[in-house]
Amino acid sequence: MVGFGNSKNSDSDTYKNGSLSDAVINLDQGDPTAFQEYWMKIKDRCTVVIRGWDLMSYFSDTTNVCWFLEPELAKAIKALHGAIGNAATEERYIVVGTGSSQLCQAALFALSSVSEVKPVSVVAAVPYYSTYVEEASYVQSKLYEWEGDARTFHKKGPYIEMVTSPNNPDGTIREPVVNGTEGGKVIHDLAYYWPHYTPITRRHDHDLMLFTFSKISGHAGSRIGWALVKDVEVAKKMVQYLTISSIGVSKESQTRATTILNELTKTCRTKSESFFEYGHEKMKSRWERLREVVESGDTFTLPNYPQAFCNFFGKTISTSPAFAWLGCKEERDLASLLKEKKVLTRGGDKCGCDKKYVRVSMLCRDDDFDVFLHRLATIKDLKCIEP
Amino acid sequence: MVGFGNSKNSDSDTYKNGSLSDAVINLDQGDPTAFQEYWMKIKDRCTVVIRGWDLMSYFSDTTNVCWFLEPELAKAIKALHGAIGNAATEERYIVVGTGSSQLCQAALFALSSVSEVKPVSVVAAVPYYSTYVEEASYVQSKLYEWEGDARTFHKKGPYIEMVTSPNNPDGTIREPVVNGTEGGKVIHDLAYYWPHYTPITRRHDHDLMLFTFSKISGHAGSRIGWALVKDVEVAKKMVQYLTISSIGVSKESQTRATTILNELTKTCRTKSESFFEYGHEKMKSRWERLREVVESGDTFTLPNYPQAFCNFFGKTISTSPAFAWLGCKEERDLASLLKEKKVLTRGGDKCGCDKKYVRVSMLCRDDDFDVFLHRLATIKDLKCIEP
Repeated sequence: MVGFGNSKNSDSDTYKNGSLSDAVINLDQGDPTAFQEYWMKIKDRCTVVIRGWDLMSYFSDTTNVCWFLEPELAKAIKALHGAIGNAATEERYIVVGTGSSQLCQAALFALSSVSEVKPVSVVAAVPYYSTYVEEASYVQSKLYEWEGDARTFHKKGPYIEMVTSPNNPDGTIREPVVNGTEGGKVIHDLAYYWPHYTPITRRHDHDLMLFTFSKISGHAGSRIGWALVKDVEVAKKMVQYLTISSIGVSKESQTRATTILNELTKTCRTKSESFFEYGHEKMKSRWERLREVVESGDTFTLPNYPQAFCNFFGKTISTSPAFAWLGCKEERDLASLLKEKKVLTRGGDKCGCDKKYVRVSMLCRDDDFDVFLHRLATIKDLKCIEP
Repeated sequence: MVGFGNSKNSDSDTYKNGSLSDAVINLDQGDPTAFQEYWMKIKDRCTVVIRGWDLMSYFSDTTNVCWFLEPELAKAIKALHGAIGNAATEERYIVVGTGSSQLCQAALFALSSVSEVKPVSVVAAVPYYSTYVEEASYVQSKLYEWEGDARTFHKKGPYIEMVTSPNNPDGTIREPVVNGTEGGKVIHDLAYYWPHYTPITRRHDHDLMLFTFSKISGHAGSRIGWALVKDVEVAKKMVQYLTISSIGVSKESQTRATTILNELTKTCRTKSESFFEYGHEKMKSRWERLREVVESGDTFTLPNYPQAFCNFFGKTISTSPAFAWLGCKEERDLASLLKEKKVLTRGGDKCGCDKKYVRVSMLCRDDDFDVFLHRLATIKDLKCIEP
């Protein structure tokens, strides 16, 4: 298992004994706690109150294909996409999931179920989100099979390409890379296609797009994601998956996500209040500080991103991804080296790539980020660290 | 797909146009809305307030095997089992899931992963919970395979027996039936082992027990279930499943379940306030009314349950299951016949049994239950209904 649950550290443990010096900093997972201060600052504006007799039924709207989707959440999702301009919601079915992980698996199930030839190959261009490997493999389904790097994939037969844009782990803007013969399907994972991470340059209108609440506002604990799906048969199959997997999705989380998404929409054009203004400034500042440390030495590398005109902000902005794809100039196991410095990151090998790269979460709390930069700055020469 | 999402009816649709006469009554799913009136009656005692900055992290307790389980929920679960006396929680790991459906699949994954021979056979004695078939089949896993009725199962090799007690759909008390050779594992689904449904005659202490919030208090919309697991390796594998499946479980739902379970525990010994006293009276009354209708004619059958001493209530009580296992005395397709009377039920064939039986939810709203009884009473002779 990659990522979650295999570490004994958390933010709350980081500062035990009141000291930062020895604490392990966990930047392996993308736990988006960076944004908590925004929600504290706006005080009670997003408080939700749920009474004992509310939300008791399995059902939300039995006339909807996605019968467990709260109608108010559907409206909030459409309103936010409309306000940001990042994705088309017209003539699409909204399918809600327990995070976008569950929806990704629902999509694999849906797209492979309708294929005549099975297993369907599942691919993604390296470096890819390491969790896709687990999602496509763990239950050993006969419906689909993980086949690795999309760029070297040349099998005949049906395939599903995961296109993550901006990409997790390296923040690049992506398009499908498989030279699609017939039977190729694409799942567009747009988890990070929001203006605090990347310029909004177009309104995506693909067949199957995934979004997640956690990476917008930082509410990872709510486990809410959604898919925008063009084909009703695919949407129905996804709903079938979610019905069997968990008989739908928490109503409490849907209610809270509704409140918070509506707040994002309501304030997004008011510069002093907008979460996206706040988030963009925060991410930009963190990236500037990280680049400064990296550029002060000759040990590490970071990708360069072109600036682009953001339709949402109405100006040219820089890219400030949720993860830093940090490399080292020598051929070394960077995750192990950083672990010696008590910084946990995700090794590039988990993303189908070289161990000289690591994925570093840029969404941790301020204090953790400070400690991370401090420790990084002390590594002036990799040779000083034992292999 | 059995059950959910294939009907255009819901409670809210039932009375459209203000008339009961033509409305379809959906008693196929076990949507536990019967208990809502209790929660309205106790007013604000279980209101939860969640602020915008609460519950943002993926993590709940990184020192716990189940790192996404809120510590307060774990305490509430232990306290309730202690107060009711229905299951042992000592020396067990608590694994929380998005309902017990997800946990059942996590358990199949865990128990089959540790098996040397795969696929592991999955069986349950007829009549069984129809959803087990889907849960064990839909992703076409190479790890496990649905093999149907446990009573006729004689394959060599590892197996998992689902033991549901009281049983869904027929309310009977059950033990494993496979003459276990080595490699046999049992999942005890104790969703209905609560005093409003059945006498609490013993404190279960099996290796792997499943419970669900929805069938205790009626809060199905929260999608909270838990497993009590003896073996740490099985618990870890279940957590691995839940991590990949959905990166844990809604924190909002866990918070609300904590509040409500604590209320159940706090009031369970106060006769005038106890949810279990209320629930037992409600279920008993419904069963008496149903038996009266059935016994007034010569068309239908119902199981008889022995009375037993309930350790929780401290007296001998009757059994009043969450589902009625209604049969007809002739060899007819009872679900189709009832559908003509606009009552949706789950056919016995879906439970591995005869079509002359149906599973009828006893947990619907009062008005629906009244209409159901009224329609049932009008069926004096099956011959009057067209085949």
